[in-house]
Amino acid sequence: MIDVYTSPTPNGHKVTVALDEMGEDYNLIPVDLSKNEQKTPEFLRMNPNGRIPVIVDRDNDDFVVFESGAILIYLGEKFGKLYPSDPKTRSVVQQWLMFQMGGLGPMMGQANVFYRYFPEKIQPAIDRYQHETRRLFEVLDHRLSEARYLAGDEFTIADIANWTWARTHKWSGASVEGLEHLNRWLDELAERPGCQSGISKPERIQDPDKMVSHAQKMVTR
Amino acid sequence: MIDVYTSPTPNGHKVTVALDEMGEDYNLIPVDLSKNEQKTPEFLRMNPNGRIPVIVDRDNDDFVVFESGAILIYLGEKFGKLYPSDPKTRSVVQQWLMFQMGGLGPMMGQANVFYRYFPEKIQPAIDRYQHETRRLFEVLDHRLSEARYLAGDEFTIADIANWTWARTHKWSGASVEGLEHLNRWLDELAERPGCQSGISKPERIQDPDKMVSHAQKMVTR
Repeated sequence: MIDVYTSPTPNGHKVTVALDEMGEDYNLIPVDLSKNEQKTPEFLRMNPNGRIPVIVDRDNDDFVVFESGAILIYLGEKFGKLYPSDPKTRSVVQQWLMFQMGGLGPMMGQANVFYRYFPEKIQPAIDRYQHETRRLFEVLDHRLSEARYLAGDEFTIADIANWTWARTHKWSGASVEGLEHLNRWLDELAERPGCQSGISKPERIQDPDKMVSHAQKMVTR
Repeated sequence: MIDVYTSPTPNGHKVTVALDEMGEDYNLIPVDLSKNEQKTPEFLRMNPNGRIPVIVDRDNDDFVVFESGAILIYLGEKFGKLYPSDPKTRSVVQQWLMFQMGGLGPMMGQANVFYRYFPEKIQPAIDRYQHETRRLFEVLDHRLSEARYLAGDEFTIADIANWTWARTHKWSGASVEGLEHLNRWLDELAERPGCQSGISKPERIQDPDKMVSHAQKMVTR
């Protein structure tokens, strides 16, 4: 069994969506970010960076994996699912996974910081990250004009990584208007049972407003 | 033979350092960012995101790989070097590679944008990214207090990814003062012949001031 330390955020949802799509069981251990539970000594022993998600594989000597992108690869390899074994296809999965890890996630994350959490309204910073997010949406749209899924014909962990972020475009204040291929893919994935159940976990342990006000207090200036 | 499309930046240097450390030959194809050569139709056919580095493996049906993190994994697997095959160690490499791709790189990159390139001086944004970079340096320092290299006893692609960024701390205006383990590792890697030669490629095709003034013009607002 796998222990999943997570919270209802895009990075957290990658892991619950992946496990639900793979049809694998796991222990869900909600981490309350509003209480900084990801910064406790116990948590930092698992991930010195103090970030969710983290998994502990009880069937593999309690092996710990942090960083959502590394967890997706670990689960894909362990269960032999959503991570094609053909070397070229696998590399394409890695490329679009890295695109999300190094591009879409950080840029949407910074859009959220300046649009939602930052103590001052700094319009040039909001604009920068919303524009960059839109540009990255256009890159995804182009890719999805030539392939059904990011790595080709098969739904993979690369789709999961990008979808859990891209679906939250309204929260970042970035538009997907006119991007028909991206919208087709967003809609298709939203219909998948594993995607639906994965983004419902863990339940929000408190009201969203309290989470936002906590994030506003904690944002690094 | 592998064609390497790259520029003298931390992400570009990951690939030349990796290939030089592995002792493999390659064709170096400098991409002039000041002429936006990474946005030409020919380049966008290789990487729709319009970013260096990109490799083309002439010995594998001209297979194209973009995203520096995916290139490191591709090279590690192809040559069986700097990417240990033991599954647990390999996952630890992936975890610290993702830490760089999703954390250190984007945060140092944003520090550079607001500290060096942005048309306005926005001190809260500069502070945010310099503080976050310092926090990530402290995470690396902690890890390097318990292991010689990021994945343990062996030098791997995870060290290359983090080193090409961390070594540029002065450019980001972030301090490594007092972080003895990080400094020990920075110094040790700086002495490695492959690291030294990798960061010297490609030669700067024009004076650094012109690159900076171009970056200032191109920064997304």
